[in-house]
Amino acid sequence: MVMEEKKISSAVIRRLPRYYRYLGELIESGVQRISSKELSARMKVTASQIRQDLNNFGGFGQQGYGYNVQYLYEEIGKILGIDRNHNMVIIGAGNLGKAIVNYSDFEKRGFVIKGIFDNNPKIKGTKIRGIEVRMMNELTDFIKDNEIEIVALTIPKEAARQIAKVVADAGVKAIWNFAHTDLNLPDDVIVENVHLSESLMRLSYTIANRK
Amino acid sequence: MVMEEKKISSAVIRRLPRYYRYLGELIESGVQRISSKELSARMKVTASQIRQDLNNFGGFGQQGYGYNVQYLYEEIGKILGIDRNHNMVIIGAGNLGKAIVNYSDFEKRGFVIKGIFDNNPKIKGTKIRGIEVRMMNELTDFIKDNEIEIVALTIPKEAARQIAKVVADAGVKAIWNFAHTDLNLPDDVIVENVHLSESLMRLSYTIANRK
Repeated sequence: MVMEEKKISSAVIRRLPRYYRYLGELIESGVQRISSKELSARMKVTASQIRQDLNNFGGFGQQGYGYNVQYLYEEIGKILGIDRNHNMVIIGAGNLGKAIVNYSDFEKRGFVIKGIFDNNPKIKGTKIRGIEVRMMNELTDFIKDNEIEIVALTIPKEAARQIAKVVADAGVKAIWNFAHTDLNLPDDVIVENVHLSESLMRLSYTIANRK
Repeated sequence: MVMEEKKISSAVIRRLPRYYRYLGELIESGVQRISSKELSARMKVTASQIRQDLNNFGGFGQQGYGYNVQYLYEEIGKILGIDRNHNMVIIGAGNLGKAIVNYSDFEKRGFVIKGIFDNNPKIKGTKIRGIEVRMMNELTDFIKDNEIEIVALTIPKEAARQIAKVVADAGVKAIWNFAHTDLNLPDDVIVENVHLSESLMRLSYTIANRK
C-alpha cells in the first residue's frame, strides 16, 4: 500500500478521523458520491486541503466524478486500523470509566471492551453493560489471556503512573490516558492523552483573548 | 501586555496548559526556580523550544538564574484566562456529565459549575456534588441569571446540535462539546471539541502503522 511507503504528517492523521466521521454521516443519509467541493462546504475545510489530504493515500477521487463515499470510508477505516477489532480494558469504574463502557459507538468501530478493573472491593463482580468489574490483582493475567491491545486509564494521576507501568510490563503497547499527567513509558508504548483540564484551558484562553 | 500585540500560534497555545501543569507540579514539590534545560528534561521538549515558547509572552527567564516557577505559573495562568472565574453549566447528567461535575480540579482552576441540566424528569431536583439537576426548559433563563460563560455538552449528537443553538441564542460564546459531531454555530461562538472516538482512532492508527 502507498501509505507504507511515505511518512504521513501528524496533521493529516489528526484530520482523518474527522473525514471518517463525515463520510459515515454521508452514508447514513444515502449519499453515494461527493466532490471535494461539496465535502469542503460541509466540513469547512478548503477543497484543495481535502484533495491534498486524500492524495496522501493514493487519492480516491476521479476528475468530474468525485469521491465514492463508501469506498473512501472503508479505505480510511483501513488506514485508521479500524477494519479489525482491538481488545480493550478500562481501568477505573468511576463515572468516566462507565461513560466509556456505555458508549456503544466504540464497539461498533471495533474497540471491544473485554474487562473493567477497579480497586474498590465493593463493586467487585458487579456489571456495567454486561461486563464484569474485576480487581486489579487479576489485571496482568487478564491482559495476557485476552490479547488486550489497548488500556484506558480513567483513574487519578498517581495511580495512573503506577498502573501504566504494570500494563506496559504485561505487554500492552497502547494506552488511552485520561489522567492529568504524562506517563513516562518506554518509547514503544503509544500513549494517546485526553487531558480534559487542558482542553478547558484552551477554551478559557480563547475567551480571554477574544477580540 | 506583549501578548496582545502579536498573534500567538495555535501550536504554542496548545502547549501552554502543559507548561502550566508541569509548573504546578514543580510548585507542589517545592521547586522555586528551574532552568529551561531542567524543564526540558522533565517535559521531553527541547530547551530551545521552551525558551522560544515562553519568549512569546515576553520571556520570564533570566540568564544563569532560570525561571521563577511561581511567577511563570501565575503569568501563564493569566494568559490562559484562569486568573478569574468562569461560570459553567453542564448539559447532560449521564456518566460523562457526572464525571465532569465530580472532577474537583476544574473548580480549583476557576471553572465554577453553576448548574446541571438534563431532559429526564426522574432526576429533576437530585443533586450531584451538591449541584441541582434542572430541566431543559429552565436553561435559557438560568444562563442569563447566572452569567454563564461556558456550556459543556455531554449529550448525543442530534440533541447537541439543537441545544448548541439554544445556548448560543442565550448569549453563551464558549461551548465545550463532547458530542460526536461538529456544531454549526456563528463564528463568534468558540467551540472546543473533545471527540473521544477520534482520539481512539488516532490510537488505532498508530497501532496499525507501527514499525
